[in-house]
Amino acid sequence: MMSLMQPFAAQLQFQNGLIEPYGEKTVRRLSDMRGMYLDIAVTEELLKQGDPLLYEVYEVDVPHEQGQLIYCTSIIYPGKVGDEYYMTKGHFHNKESTAEMYLGLQGRGYLLLQTHEGQVSAMEMVPGTVAYIPPFWAHRTINIGGEPFIFFGVYPGDAGHNYGTIEEEGFAKLVVEKNGKPVLIDNPRYR
Amino acid sequence: MMSLMQPFAAQLQFQNGLIEPYGEKTVRRLSDMRGMYLDIAVTEELLKQGDPLLYEVYEVDVPHEQGQLIYCTSIIYPGKVGDEYYMTKGHFHNKESTAEMYLGLQGRGYLLLQTHEGQVSAMEMVPGTVAYIPPFWAHRTINIGGEPFIFFGVYPGDAGHNYGTIEEEGFAKLVVEKNGKPVLIDNPRYR
Repeated sequence: MMSLMQPFAAQLQFQNGLIEPYGEKTVRRLSDMRGMYLDIAVTEELLKQGDPLLYEVYEVDVPHEQGQLIYCTSIIYPGKVGDEYYMTKGHFHNKESTAEMYLGLQGRGYLLLQTHEGQVSAMEMVPGTVAYIPPFWAHRTINIGGEPFIFFGVYPGDAGHNYGTIEEEGFAKLVVEKNGKPVLIDNPRYR
Repeated sequence: MMSLMQPFAAQLQFQNGLIEPYGEKTVRRLSDMRGMYLDIAVTEELLKQGDPLLYEVYEVDVPHEQGQLIYCTSIIYPGKVGDEYYMTKGHFHNKESTAEMYLGLQGRGYLLLQTHEGQVSAMEMVPGTVAYIPPFWAHRTINIGGEPFIFFGVYPGDAGHNYGTIEEEGFAKLVVEKNGKPVLIDNPRYR
């Protein structure tokens, strides 16, 4: 029989996204996303200059099992690789019939979504935006502002992460800066 | 085959808990909780005077299916019935192996939890508190402050609500005001 888990609390700081106590901290630098940004020459140049920090995820320690809810805060730093804004790797869930929910806390971002069949969706997130990622949609977040883009996320304990499909195929759309504004363009390297 | 759901967003106001667009709004007045507060004479007197509003829940429209995430904001107004603070009905999930997560937005509250076996747990919630309600724990929230206690909640789409067990048995503990402070006391009417 499943043993009984005890209730517990963590404390979230809305201003900076820090949540304590957290279990796992994920740090992604540009070297972790080699090949995911369109401009390879700029990527290599930035890596030579010092491998910038793109984003961090703080996840609270909850069992990854069906019926549980995993929650975390993500902090995407402001910046660009060429014209392309700093972004997360993006992923499908391993169990694709599971949803995810994001709550914007600070800064401005885009949530970019797509299906295996090539449907694409994008929405802007600001503080208070509750974005719903339905089952079967891959999702990536992008900082389109000048300060950290911070959001709180919740997903089912049995969702799991499939990064491989996006690493191989990319997203159909890229979010780039044109005349100081974010614009979606087709990704010439998609699939 | 399951039809593909489209991504969407709602906007949450951290200050007052309003979320739009919402699907279902639940309003609980004292008449909806007759017999759940210890002091029956005071309950009846308050009902004669006008049936006070205890709390409201705004739930966003997401299918109640496994893999989905239901989310809502709850606003518990400040006040007491005798010495007992305004509180929610409280419930188990129908599917008891499902968790729930609360994020405190405004005000001060208690989260009171118990299992069928009579284990009890309680924790204070303030803005930023992320309270984790593990599988198998009934949960009730209580406003112990002088302003609305507002929190955001997320639970699995297949959780469901079982209010009946708590309506019949009550909670083992009550949260009452003693010398201006919240105190947990045994509920003489439990079971």
